[in-house]
Amino acid sequence: MPVNLKRPDIDSILNISGINLSTATSNLKYNNRKDLALIFLDKGSVVAGVFTKNQFLAAPVEIAKSHLNFEPNKRALVINTGSANAGTGEKGLKDAREICQALASELKIDMKDVLPFSTGVIMTFLPTEKIKKSIPLLVENLSPNNWLDAAEAIMTTDTTPKAISTSGFIDDSKINITGISKGSGMINPNMATMLAFIGTDANISPQMLNELTKEVVQNTFNRISVDGDTSTNDSFIVVATNKTNLNQIKTKNKQYKILKALIMDVASHLAQAIVRDGEGATKFIQIIVEEGRSEEECHNVAKVIANSPLVKTAFFASDPNLGRILAALGNAQISDLDISLVNIYLNEVQFAKKGSIAPYFDESYGKKEMLKDEISLKILLGRGRANCTMWTTDLSYDYIKINSEYRT
Amino acid sequence: MPVNLKRPDIDSILNISGINLSTATSNLKYNNRKDLALIFLDKGSVVAGVFTKNQFLAAPVEIAKSHLNFEPNKRALVINTGSANAGTGEKGLKDAREICQALASELKIDMKDVLPFSTGVIMTFLPTEKIKKSIPLLVENLSPNNWLDAAEAIMTTDTTPKAISTSGFIDDSKINITGISKGSGMINPNMATMLAFIGTDANISPQMLNELTKEVVQNTFNRISVDGDTSTNDSFIVVATNKTNLNQIKTKNKQYKILKALIMDVASHLAQAIVRDGEGATKFIQIIVEEGRSEEECHNVAKVIANSPLVKTAFFASDPNLGRILAALGNAQISDLDISLVNIYLNEVQFAKKGSIAPYFDESYGKKEMLKDEISLKILLGRGRANCTMWTTDLSYDYIKINSEYRT
Repeated sequence: MPVNLKRPDIDSILNISGINLSTATSNLKYNNRKDLALIFLDKGSVVAGVFTKNQFLAAPVEIAKSHLNFEPNKRALVINTGSANAGTGEKGLKDAREICQALASELKIDMKDVLPFSTGVIMTFLPTEKIKKSIPLLVENLSPNNWLDAAEAIMTTDTTPKAISTSGFIDDSKINITGISKGSGMINPNMATMLAFIGTDANISPQMLNELTKEVVQNTFNRISVDGDTSTNDSFIVVATNKTNLNQIKTKNKQYKILKALIMDVASHLAQAIVRDGEGATKFIQIIVEEGRSEEECHNVAKVIANSPLVKTAFFASDPNLGRILAALGNAQISDLDISLVNIYLNEVQFAKKGSIAPYFDESYGKKEMLKDEISLKILLGRGRANCTMWTTDLSYDYIKINSEYRT
Repeated sequence: MPVNLKRPDIDSILNISGINLSTATSNLKYNNRKDLALIFLDKGSVVAGVFTKNQFLAAPVEIAKSHLNFEPNKRALVINTGSANAGTGEKGLKDAREICQALASELKIDMKDVLPFSTGVIMTFLPTEKIKKSIPLLVENLSPNNWLDAAEAIMTTDTTPKAISTSGFIDDSKINITGISKGSGMINPNMATMLAFIGTDANISPQMLNELTKEVVQNTFNRISVDGDTSTNDSFIVVATNKTNLNQIKTKNKQYKILKALIMDVASHLAQAIVRDGEGATKFIQIIVEEGRSEEECHNVAKVIANSPLVKTAFFASDPNLGRILAALGNAQISDLDISLVNIYLNEVQFAKKGSIAPYFDESYGKKEMLKDEISLKILLGRGRANCTMWTTDLSYDYIKINSEYRT
């Protein structure tokens, strides 16, 4: 059961001029389930991407990166579930290229203008023939209002499709933004077993879209954690179709900032949606670290706490065993930490003052806060002005269930 | 249920000349359960210790460290369960000192010759009065053959007491070694929620005992992981009572090496026993990383794999979803890793060759190995001659159960 996350209302999802989508049911791993998606872009669209830092790069990620480096005007993104096509060596690369080639022929475009994405089990080969068989149907069914369908087709252990739209004005031009994402396990601050695609009709240069994508990921998809694992396939893609009357954004000007804020909103929602749908999640936990010397040390503290199994099981049990948070903080090993300056709050309740049990703190207050399904944990380090916010979940029986039964 | 670990046979535990022990039932947290232990050392004993690296140092650890720095000839170690006396500020220090003082008066020794240890819930104050009330009984009941009793008295979520003895000859002197430990959760490579005490009648200088203790911990207690959390209270103590005819060891000579090997055996057993009794463990997993450029990078790889929830749940499910091991390795971020040189074995079965699925590998082979309760995972990095071995467990429903019900 996702935490306060519902299937998006189809009427809330905006089409993006210049983007058509389709899905197919190809029995890649399960029967009768959408498992393949195509996103087709009009000529003139620019694409930027951020990819996993895992050293065992999946074959499709390797190819998508090289195609994107070649030049940023792309035409098609193809996404399959069922197999991650990672740890598959030369054959994996050959398979991914074969899919790109087959799709390029059908769409009559250059093979280098296709970006492939895969998600699913690692170290299994791609079901290439099944995917190829579905390509004509994918091309035939392209339509601008298939965003929610596409969000559904890229799901693995997700329990609900993740999609959101927003719009705004830059100068006098109305611009629309729609994004979809998938992911609920192998979620760690440096991206996640996660795919996210955001499209906008705004006009922006490839260089600026690239900058914007990196800036956005830093405060959204790099700030979530479910289990501390990082996948081989994470990819975050932003597409701008250049379909509005807006002058093309070529510098970090006012227009850039407005567009970035709008895309940040969409990415932030999609990132939090992944956590809310985190495997076995029963709680949505925001960790705010303030008064650090640098954002990096704040992020490090947040990450260690977010990934502590003991902290996570305490949240699951609604057990105000808050010493576990102190212990996790002590493991972050930030240099010269003076624990006597540390203050910690659970929602509005202070439970640690100057590094020790807060006077007047009573466990019953802690229990009351722990029972909520939206919890904010605030740690004040007392040594600077930097801060960082992360989103995570608890660790429940269902996480074990999902991950020990994932392939059966 | 611990993995292939039984309650030690009392007849297998050797007394150590110069060491007397006792236990008490003080209702510190639970009723009718041994929860307090005293280890009393004859004059002339030397003590060395290694303590947690967690920055939220528990009060007893702070005091034990300062007493030990003062000078190494100690007389008494006192251990309570129920409260870790960590995150307890000034009051915590005062409480721990009060226990040392009360015990020192009863034993007619200097308060600085007492080392206090606590284990249990963090951020709860020490039940000082209950402990003080039990001190006369503790002193009265001292006896050399209470090692197994003491091992039982220091248990928290442990399901079985952990104790072992060995003996050997250095020159013509027979020396005996007995050790006890506790711990099953909050277990991470940099020590664990763990207490371990080893006593020997051998003769060794304080400086050399200190060296030996650090060398031993590096390849034993620093090489285990259950959940990746590091506690505020970890302590590993080695006592030498200097009761044999052996000439005192004052350099890293042949005698030093023999003694170190014997103590390493005992520490290695105790460290592995902690993993075998790991919270919810159903499997004992040895991770061997070879062909690395340095021991540090091998340790890092082993640690990332050992702490990956996805790898651990796959082991729990006996699911040969071995791509998760590849993904974890890719997250260790060792520099310039050439994944095409990586080979991985599950027991004797090679499943990854040159970074990809091994030819002829069939999942049924993997499944057969995964079903065993003792599993060895060997990773060859193909880039050097260093190696490292770690011991860990799977992640099961019972881990969640134990840690979400720990305090109820």
